[in-house]
Amino acid sequence: MTHATYDILGIGNAIVDVVARADEAFLSRHDMHKGSMQLIGAAAADALYAAMPPGIESSGGSVANSCAVAAGLGARVAYIGKVANDQLGGVFRHDIEAVGVHFPTMALIGGAPTARCLILVTPDGQRTMNTFLGACITLCEADVDPVLVAASEITYLEGYLYDPPEAQAAFKKAAAAAHAAGRQVALSLSDAFCVNRHRAAFLDLVANHVDILFANEAEITALYECNTFEEAAKAARHDVGLAALTRSEAGSLILRGTETVAVTAETARVVDTTGAGDAYAAGFLTGLTAGKSLEICGRMGSIAAAEVIGHYGARPEADLRKLMPG
Amino acid sequence: MTHATYDILGIGNAIVDVVARADEAFLSRHDMHKGSMQLIGAAAADALYAAMPPGIESSGGSVANSCAVAAGLGARVAYIGKVANDQLGGVFRHDIEAVGVHFPTMALIGGAPTARCLILVTPDGQRTMNTFLGACITLCEADVDPVLVAASEITYLEGYLYDPPEAQAAFKKAAAAAHAAGRQVALSLSDAFCVNRHRAAFLDLVANHVDILFANEAEITALYECNTFEEAAKAARHDVGLAALTRSEAGSLILRGTETVAVTAETARVVDTTGAGDAYAAGFLTGLTAGKSLEICGRMGSIAAAEVIGHYGARPEADLRKLMPG
Repeated sequence: MTHATYDILGIGNAIVDVVARADEAFLSRHDMHKGSMQLIGAAAADALYAAMPPGIESSGGSVANSCAVAAGLGARVAYIGKVANDQLGGVFRHDIEAVGVHFPTMALIGGAPTARCLILVTPDGQRTMNTFLGACITLCEADVDPVLVAASEITYLEGYLYDPPEAQAAFKKAAAAAHAAGRQVALSLSDAFCVNRHRAAFLDLVANHVDILFANEAEITALYECNTFEEAAKAARHDVGLAALTRSEAGSLILRGTETVAVTAETARVVDTTGAGDAYAAGFLTGLTAGKSLEICGRMGSIAAAEVIGHYGARPEADLRKLMPG
Repeated sequence: MTHATYDILGIGNAIVDVVARADEAFLSRHDMHKGSMQLIGAAAADALYAAMPPGIESSGGSVANSCAVAAGLGARVAYIGKVANDQLGGVFRHDIEAVGVHFPTMALIGGAPTARCLILVTPDGQRTMNTFLGACITLCEADVDPVLVAASEITYLEGYLYDPPEAQAAFKKAAAAAHAAGRQVALSLSDAFCVNRHRAAFLDLVANHVDILFANEAEITALYECNTFEEAAKAARHDVGLAALTRSEAGSLILRGTETVAVTAETARVVDTTGAGDAYAAGFLTGLTAGKSLEICGRMGSIAAAEVIGHYGARPEADLRKLMPG
């Protein structure tokens, strides 16, 4: 196996976030499940945007957020995702390239606009997401360059990629190319509702195609249809080589074979939880590709997540390297 | 004089801000004067954006910021400004309409894109602005509806309007229509470099066409080419009916005839000074149209400014009404 050019190759839905504040009544009026992500069409996105308070726009997308955090931590990172050739696509491309992430995917021309995620942040800091996939639905196998995958130590995929139909083939192609090159595949389960939409496919992926799994408590219990976190964690330990399971302020549990590492959460003022899981995965994978112990990997994830939930938006504001353990 | 439909009608350059952090070395490398605004063309805007770190996009524009703050304070507000029929134009329109501002100006179709202001925030919280005027250069007399002006108690104009040539005619038409209807005209000097570009015109405006003047220390000394704030304040007192002169952490000085009111600044953690002057003017004018004393008007300005400089971005995050005096 040749030396990797990139530590992490992320593949995900390339999305621009529109973040606004709202109260619980707003969520109820618009039939949203607090803390979850729902897919909406163009017309619903326009209607919801019209009803929303003023917003702040910034680049988002789960794995893209992770890529930006990992690059900020000094990892060598590439990203595959589909934006349109429009102003928001330009914003997305600028922001991910500005942190040093290699982003070779061609923009979609003359089709749907760049994807938007309309995010309502409630006073408790919880974020509720409404995603219009736009150009993301055209991400396909042709966008996955097997040479780039083979040159990347870990290919990191988001469960959300199973929502746009063409992207599933891209996902499988990337996973196969990674393993053919002796590399590893990591997956984030993304969202409990996403898990419910794709449970059979995710169970197969986790058992047979994934080396490193990220999930929070709601996602892992949804995957295995368990009543308790402990049961779900047991199933994950059996199913996948390495699992990092996050539990918000209760920290995270890392499972590898018979090994178990419990990591406490960093104390943080919660302003907006958007991107917390993405930042955790980024810190963890950056540590892993740098050869750190599981405990340090978990701490790097916790510290990155704490920084991101302390302000609005899913990308870091602080110089994360300065926050990391020696 | 009939009862006004709007307390404040703002007319200004309709701009979307792109805010990023940078150090002083970045400003030096790109020949920027810290704290000021410079105009840049499309190619320079693209080149600067490519060199900038990741950003956060939000609606801006000096008077538009004031309109959003005033609406947040409960004033009845309308706004005239030119965006393009593009994604950023949609963001601008959404954000100003979402806070209840009436925004009748038609978008430009098939011309320059919506204006952008590339803002670098240094570690001291100072903002340095680079504006690509885009669609703003097409704002013209036809965009000013004299009926709307006559229905507005105060027409509030920004000095920046003198940069796009067509807008000067729009400015003069609005001021004439306001006075013909027995209404008042307010002006912000905007920026010391802007004052230097248009000093003769501004001196004429202030002496002959403006009832209420907003300026900070750099702007008022630039206007009158004075060495000291005291000399400039004396000239302003003589020139204009009501002047509100801001001095950052030294508070503001309000001059009306022989009357002088000194207002202390609110204590605030400085994160990003973008929009501080805009918010001050909004608080002041909202108080004035509500019949408050000059001291209360000044305090309302100071409190609004303190909220805005405590976070990134020029539009308020908090419910400003809750922060106001009695």
